[in-house]
Amino acid sequence: MDKTSKIEPRTLKGFRDYGLIEQKARQDMLQKIQTTFERFGFAPLSTPSLEYKEILMNKYGDDEKLVYSFTDNGDREVALRYDLTVPLARFVAQNQGTLAFPFKRYQIAPVWRAENTQRGRSREFYQCDVDVVGTESLSSDAEVIACLCLALEAVGIKNYEARINNRQLFKIFLKKFQNDEKQIVTIIRGVDKLAKIGTEGVLQYLRDNGIDDEGIEEVRKFLGLQEAQNIFTEVKNQYEEGSEIVKSMNELMKAIMLLGVSADHLAFDPFIARGLDYYTGVVFEVVLKDKPEFGSITGGGRYDGLVDQYSSQSLPAVGGSIGIDRLFEVLESEHKVKSARVADCIILNLDESLRVEYLEMAKIIRTANINTEVYYDAAKLEKQFKYAEQKNIPYAVVVGKEEKEQGSVKIKNLQTREERVVQKSELASTLVNMLASNS
Amino acid sequence: MDKTSKIEPRTLKGFRDYGLIEQKARQDMLQKIQTTFERFGFAPLSTPSLEYKEILMNKYGDDEKLVYSFTDNGDREVALRYDLTVPLARFVAQNQGTLAFPFKRYQIAPVWRAENTQRGRSREFYQCDVDVVGTESLSSDAEVIACLCLALEAVGIKNYEARINNRQLFKIFLKKFQNDEKQIVTIIRGVDKLAKIGTEGVLQYLRDNGIDDEGIEEVRKFLGLQEAQNIFTEVKNQYEEGSEIVKSMNELMKAIMLLGVSADHLAFDPFIARGLDYYTGVVFEVVLKDKPEFGSITGGGRYDGLVDQYSSQSLPAVGGSIGIDRLFEVLESEHKVKSARVADCIILNLDESLRVEYLEMAKIIRTANINTEVYYDAAKLEKQFKYAEQKNIPYAVVVGKEEKEQGSVKIKNLQTREERVVQKSELASTLVNMLASNS
Repeated sequence: MDKTSKIEPRTLKGFRDYGLIEQKARQDMLQKIQTTFERFGFAPLSTPSLEYKEILMNKYGDDEKLVYSFTDNGDREVALRYDLTVPLARFVAQNQGTLAFPFKRYQIAPVWRAENTQRGRSREFYQCDVDVVGTESLSSDAEVIACLCLALEAVGIKNYEARINNRQLFKIFLKKFQNDEKQIVTIIRGVDKLAKIGTEGVLQYLRDNGIDDEGIEEVRKFLGLQEAQNIFTEVKNQYEEGSEIVKSMNELMKAIMLLGVSADHLAFDPFIARGLDYYTGVVFEVVLKDKPEFGSITGGGRYDGLVDQYSSQSLPAVGGSIGIDRLFEVLESEHKVKSARVADCIILNLDESLRVEYLEMAKIIRTANINTEVYYDAAKLEKQFKYAEQKNIPYAVVVGKEEKEQGSVKIKNLQTREERVVQKSELASTLVNMLASNS
Repeated sequence: MDKTSKIEPRTLKGFRDYGLIEQKARQDMLQKIQTTFERFGFAPLSTPSLEYKEILMNKYGDDEKLVYSFTDNGDREVALRYDLTVPLARFVAQNQGTLAFPFKRYQIAPVWRAENTQRGRSREFYQCDVDVVGTESLSSDAEVIACLCLALEAVGIKNYEARINNRQLFKIFLKKFQNDEKQIVTIIRGVDKLAKIGTEGVLQYLRDNGIDDEGIEEVRKFLGLQEAQNIFTEVKNQYEEGSEIVKSMNELMKAIMLLGVSADHLAFDPFIARGLDYYTGVVFEVVLKDKPEFGSITGGGRYDGLVDQYSSQSLPAVGGSIGIDRLFEVLESEHKVKSARVADCIILNLDESLRVEYLEMAKIIRTANINTEVYYDAAKLEKQFKYAEQKNIPYAVVVGKEEKEQGSVKIKNLQTREERVVQKSELASTLVNMLASNS
């Protein structure tokens, strides 16, 4: 061990720690999301953090350069997963013969992206995904969107809007490109940047990426529809092929509402494109109506061609993802994080010679399912109270030599400073009652 | 998108997927471990998967070569975390000024090691760690060990033994090396391999690593103590400095028992060394008495010097770790995994025209906190039943046109094949009762 020089303790740019109270709040949030996902019958899947690089390539459009990749000790080109969707597609293709279809899974796990941290982006963040593979049913689109919306509601997000579109509409509007998959992909990548760079920015991007003047005009006309009061009517009236899609969009909205999402959380938005290349049908993003600065906190869509890239059998799919770290920032900004705690009770250390007594009491209280700390050293009481306060612990158990002799314990409410003396045999049941009436 | 050639769907050697039922069982197991950790007042910490490489170096002894490291896009030398202990030490040193001490945290997260997969080892696996930083109290040693043992009991592990030692004893036994930290480290690394390579193997390892003949003899004599009936007596009689340690080992055993671990799960083992360089005092490993082939499923110890490597202030620490993947293998081998499920109920799809009806019912049942799936397509009923069976779903809700007209629903117990017809308004409450009486 080289102990001669200190190593500066620090984290990498774009990576961060979550301390105790914060992480507890985060886990509580994840737990609520997981409960909602399971309520819809999604079951968990776990895939590795590292995949063969070639599995991840050609999926992420302009963002492909953000994939973390390297050569491992065995000279394999490997990459940290960039999202949870591509590993899912790989998994389904690999296990197609044994899976029950439709394959409904959730995954809550970190992903890695070499983002520009100046834009406040993390390079490691958690995604919470639900996906259904193996059906084109409109009900599956509806369940994915409804499930994600209700998960947001479960963690306390109220003023959100799910903006829904169908990528097929791009093809209908932009007839010129109908048979040029590559140009359509370029246009979709461009339109995805609309909120950030505006109409002229999008058109410039398209010019830079090889769309000709005639094409630019068609896209300009399409983006001009932003002004249209009723885009659905526009689609139906002007584009014959659109009426089927409009009908299914209406049914989709209705189905999402049936599943418990109220109408004022749903909107049709013809300019939702999603940046990733693999989407083919319905696409959606959820934003906060009063906090647009957080951008999209949830998004997804239908990607009927992705599994095909690894398999000879075609499998349609739909899914979506909640970006948990941005969501956590939202909750932090609304001061919904502070009250998290782990321990309900702390046994103070008044006298080192009572160590055995303190451990015994801890066991008794824990057996009543109360999370309990023992303060290990006989430090100044002031220091012990401060410790309890920093960890939001509501009750302290105080036993000195006197109490020990009398077989009694003092329970102190650390907020109100009220104290109550009970027999040791009543300690656990008294705490159970206090906590029940306090919550 | 290049769709011309298929990419072979596969995972990297040493990495694996966990499918739905399996992963649900794993999560249930993690949840029980987490509950036990929190019962002891440990709070969660989250640290990044990637750290600066230099943070991780010089900590892991012979296994340092197993650290996954690479150069990132910003030309930084980075590494995937190899364990959760070193990142904890880095975190504590970095935030020393603001943390409440003693700092008690748990972390449940994956770590990465470029292991030789021929030995059946994974290259990515979950660790569940508890640690206490900032106290030398024997109570903290006891709580760490007791908490880990009770976590194992919580997931159903019964026939285990926690084997406890104190690294200070090596120094007492091996007087010759007392002042040569480097040679002591070499010997500890050697003794750690005892169970795998035997006494002669250990001695050869020490010869290969520069221990001279005289030293080899002293180690041989020490390893010969294996035969001693009462090693404690040996220590006390022959080595004066040992009696303090023997006393504290006895107190430690007693404290662990007070916290709820029965005596037959505890043993003193003078040859538990632990391979990692950073341990300084108490060390322990938990093995399964009837399944030694699984090796150590839990281990840890006191590491009073680790935080010092990043900080000018000295901070003693103790902690331990449950290797979750090996534990899961144990449970799998005992057939304790199969019954996991997510959904309690599936709504079958008898008629595509009733899609709206099915979604409505799903909402009603979910509102009663019952995890519910809707089968999306009107597939053959046989296929739908098979799907339910593969996912261990106990109840099916069956509604065709006839039931719809009568406002009734059929509930089918998928194990007993019993059916019951109730009014739609009674659906949720009936299922709640059925599930309660069935669990």
